[in-house]
Formats: sequence, C-alpha cells, structure tokens
Amino acid sequence: MRAGLRVGIVGATGAVGQELMRILPSRGWSVAELRLMASPASAGRRLRFGDEELVVEAAEPQRLSGLDVIFFSAGASVSRELAPEAVRRGAVVIDNSSAFRMEPDVPLVVPEVNMQDARAHRGIVANPNCSTIIMAVALWPLHRAARIRRIVVSTYQAVSGAGARAMAELLAQVDAERRGEPYEPAILPYAAGARHYPIAFNVIPQVDRFDQGGYTKEEWKMVHETRKIFHEPELAVTATTVRVPVLRSHSESINVELARPVDVDEARALLREAPGVEVVDDPDRQLYPMPRDWSGRDTVAVGRIRADYSCPTALNLWVVGDQIRKGAALNAVQIAEGLFA
Amino acid sequence: MRAGLRVGIVGATGAVGQELMRILPSRGWSVAELRLMASPASAGRRLRFGDEELVVEAAEPQRLSGLDVIFFSAGASVSRELAPEAVRRGAVVIDNSSAFRMEPDVPLVVPEVNMQDARAHRGIVANPNCSTIIMAVALWPLHRAARIRRIVVSTYQAVSGAGARAMAELLAQVDAERRGEPYEPAILPYAAGARHYPIAFNVIPQVDRFDQGGYTKEEWKMVHETRKIFHEPELAVTATTVRVPVLRSHSESINVELARPVDVDEARALLREAPGVEVVDDPDRQLYPMPRDWSGRDTVAVGRIRADYSCPTALNLWVVGDQIRKGAALNAVQIAEGLFA
Repeated sequence: MRAGLRVGIVGATGAVGQELMRILPSRGWSVAELRLMASPASAGRRLRFGDEELVVEAAEPQRLSGLDVIFFSAGASVSRELAPEAVRRGAVVIDNSSAFRMEPDVPLVVPEVNMQDARAHRGIVANPNCSTIIMAVALWPLHRAARIRRIVVSTYQAVSGAGARAMAELLAQVDAERRGEPYEPAILPYAAGARHYPIAFNVIPQVDRFDQGGYTKEEWKMVHETRKIFHEPELAVTATTVRVPVLRSHSESINVELARPVDVDEARALLREAPGVEVVDDPDRQLYPMPRDWSGRDTVAVGRIRADYSCPTALNLWVVGDQIRKGAALNAVQIAEGLFA
Repeated sequence: MRAGLRVGIVGATGAVGQELMRILPSRGWSVAELRLMASPASAGRRLRFGDEELVVEAAEPQRLSGLDVIFFSAGASVSRELAPEAVRRGAVVIDNSSAFRMEPDVPLVVPEVNMQDARAHRGIVANPNCSTIIMAVALWPLHRAARIRRIVVSTYQAVSGAGARAMAELLAQVDAERRGEPYEPAILPYAAGARHYPIAFNVIPQVDRFDQGGYTKEEWKMVHETRKIFHEPELAVTATTVRVPVLRSHSESINVELARPVDVDEARALLREAPGVEVVDDPDRQLYPMPRDWSGRDTVAVGRIRADYSCPTALNLWVVGDQIRKGAALNAVQIAEGLFA
C-alpha cells in the first residue's frame, strides 16, 4: 500500500466506520492523515486509532478538502449531499451507501470480480450491498468457468446489517424473553417501518422496505447489483432475503444454474483457486461454514457444494461472509488499495 | 369423529405425544380408552388428559392389544419393532417415524393431498417428515392447477424439530452467552453426531445426518416423500435444510417452477381456497407469516407470493407451519379422522 495517503471516514462512529479503523492499520496502511467525520450529534467524540486518539468532526463540505480518499458510510442521503462535494475538492470517494450504485457512470466494484471498473471512476466508486458482495465473490469463479444462467438465493442475514441498534434490540429481546418480561420491538425489520416484529427466537422474511412486485429493496439490490458487477445486464436472479437472530455474518443458500454441467469436484477446485474464497466443505466430518465461526474473517466461505439432481447443470451452495467486513469495510479498503497501489 | 375409539400413543411423553394429547379432545374425540406408552424409563409417569390422570406404561407387544388406532412417535427403531406387532393385534398404526414412509405398500399421507391413499392401508399409515408436510400442503394447490416442474427449497427449521433437548440446549446456550460463560453444545445438529455446534446466535446448515451426494437425510426426505405424496415419482425437487435459533415452527423459502405461468393473483386465489392453507400476504402492510406467530396454529401459512422474474413460469413463496402440530401430531390425527369418520 502506498504510504502517506490522507484518508477521511464519513460515518466513523458506525459499525462500518469502526471496522474501517481496525482494517486500515491491519493491512499496513500508514496514513499521513486520518480525518474522522460523523453526524453533528457525534462530533467531539474521541476514537482510538492505533496509538492516537482522534476527535470526530461534523461532516461538512469544507472538512472534505485536502484528502486523497474518503470512505462514506453514513447512509444514502449523507452520501448524496457530501460525496459530490468531496469529489469537487479532489478526493476519491468509496461510497458504502446505495446512493450511487446504479448510476451508469459510477463503477460498482467487488475487487475479486471487476477491479478494472474502479479505475474508470469519475471520483466516486460504489461499494455494493453486503449480501450482493458475498454472493458475487462466491459465484464469480463459477460464472467465469461455466457462465451462470440463473441464480435462486435465500438469505439468512444477521441483525447487525440493520445497524448497532438492531443488535442491541436482539440482545435486549432475548434477555426480556428469558425473564418472562414483555418487549416492544422498535427497529426490525427496518426502523422507519410502520410495523416492528420481534427477532428473538424468530425469523423475519423482510430486509429493508418493500418495493416493486412484492420484493424488498434488499432483494432487488441482489438482482440489479449482481448484474452490474458481472457486466451481465440480463442475468436471471431471484432472491428472498430473511433476517435471522444472528449477531454478525450473513449466510446464503444459493442454487445456481450454469450453461454447462460442473461437477462437485470441479466446482470445489474452481472455488479453492478463487481469490477471496475459502472452501469449507466436508460432509463426512460435518464441516461447513457457519456465521458464528466466520465473523471477523476476510474471506467468503463456501460449503455444502452439491449437484442439484433436479437440474443437470445446477449446483447448490451454502455461502457465509462477515457482512460488516468483506460485505462492507474490507471491500471498500480493497477498492482503495487497487486504486492507490 | 366416531366416538368410543380405543386409542394408544407410543411415545406419549415426547413433544409429539404431548401435542396429540392436547389435539384429541380439542377436535371432539371422546375416546373409550386412551393408553399411554413410552420407553421403560418413562413408565410410571402420570400425565393429565382432560380431567383424568393417566399412567404411562412401558411400550411392549402385549400392551398393543385391544386398541383401534395407535399413534407411534418414539423413533424409527421403536416403530420397526412394535408397529407390526400392533397391526397383528388388530390396530391401525399411524406412524410418525421415518421407518415405513418409503415402503411401497405403506401409504404416506397428507390428508389435504392424498387421503384416499390412507384408505388402502394394510395396517400402517405413515406420517411424512415435518418439513415435507408443510411444503406439500402449500404446493399441492399449485400442482393441481398448473403442474409443478421443479422445486428449489431452503428451510429455516426450529430446534424443537430435534426434540425437547435441543430446545433446552438453545435456551441454556443463550443464557450462558448472556452471562459470558462457556457452553459445550451436545445435541445439534444431531445428538448422535461426532460434532456439535452452538445454535444460539448461529445457523447450522445441517438437519439430521449426512447421506448420499452430500445431502442430509432431511433433504432427501423432502425430495422422496414429496414425490410419493404427490404421486409424481420423477418430480424435480432440491432442498437445503438449515437449523435456526427458533423454538418452534419451521419456515421455508420455496421457488416453484410450474408448467404454465400463474400470476400472483391466481396463486393467492388458489391458495386461499385450499384446505389447510392460510394466505398471509400483504407487503403494503408488512404482513407475512413468521414462526413466532404461527406456533400452535393448525394451518400452513403462505406469504411473500411473488412472480419470479428470472423464470416466466416460476413463483417464490414463504411458507410457515408449526412442525409439531401440522408437521406431526395434527396430521396424524387428521389421518385417523379420515379413516374412522
């Protein structure tokens, strides 16, 4: 990594911002400056970065000057307002929000798949949705070898995908339930929604708000973002996204139909060689990835690789990834490393 | 229901046996005799049935005489040993284990689908696997109207499917986790397995032991039993079965490809008219079934009914059912009602 970059983080106090601050030194970034920004409510907070203590500033246009790269992770409206200001002031923006992902002139990048797209940026590179990143890393090696015809995915998503408040809600609900006390849910499936449901000892088949055709925004992201990342505008993808009472790391049950038969041995070999993928797949020893094991890991894990006997060119996969790390912060850092290497 | 039947329950102290004892009076059964049987370790226990207190006896061949119908729910080896003895002594056996399900001369019955098969029994009628019953009730109306070509299903299964000990394990693990204490899992994914994994704040992509082709027995049951119940020996079905930290009721994300296009309105209408099905599907009001809501209910709930834009004749469904009730005890009682009506 090139030393001496001047780095900004907008949304430094959030889960992804905090993860960025852990990842940068662990990957050998020696920054010339790290400027932490967040909402005015968080301004003045002190955060530890290596041996230093840094003060969080309110994110404002003039504070975006004099930086080489700024990671945005404070929601789509903040990105829409401030990312263009940052670009105007000379920074490259790696945006973790959904604000620009589908803009035709904004690259949407998973480094293991399409790092070359990032190099054509006009100031902003978009980081995909977490569930999409995890699926894209696992499926790209199969797509390259045998062209994907169709993807049917069902997700098992951790509550931390809905923010720190959703994690706190799960734990508080579990505690209340065990004490036999009532608990009024207020965050999931999404904080701004009209109805909230318990997640403790439950699953909620809704992630984010509903959109066209009875699909949620999360489900549409998995369709449209995968198409853009893979440069396959017609790729057939259908998704059902579900919240489960897991604190961290998303799991995905993926059925993938290919243009030619790929047997389990070939699929395992392709995945073992693929960057960013780890194969954890040994039924005889009951080995497969699980979200508790995979939290804090950089790779996307693939297991339960099986021939789908209902379709001669299809496979079933079970994919797990840390959605805060590879699904967000790490992917953003990898994009920056690719641009500034 | 015909009054005056002499009824036996083998496995009376288990979750399904207990549920049977709640269901019988609630459906107006007035039994002439109820004989409760279980393993020798449970013999002598007293169980309440309505106003009476009944003593559990050890299940032995001679205790199977003089009964009209015996519900077996004590595992496949007990059924294999004692069900033929019960038939020899004149009883009809409704067997909840996997012992006889795939025997060609034993009907495998979901009353909403193939009650006529039960009437051809030779003494034993098999109750299907819980995940299979829930899926079959939801998909049969679509199959009748538009013939199913292929099913891709991913499950979200409650721990009670692995017995009362698995429920206790989830709760004890959650408590230990919240106190910051270690907990050594000993039951899930299955008690006899070489490895056990935590289920608290985790998902385990294994239900039952592994079998051919990297599939678990639970996954194969969903394939083979659905084919037998539907009388479609070639039906294309592929399943991924997953345990989630839910106490009761299974959920299933089902992608179903039909022989002709069925739009969402037609699918909802077909399902609304179907026996045993309840449609809970209103995205505008965030309404869909969830396992916490559905525990203790008799129907199978279907929601999130969507056109699958990746395939012109496919639909996505989210299906929830109480796997102890409709997935086991209630289904068995319905079979008996059909036979003795």
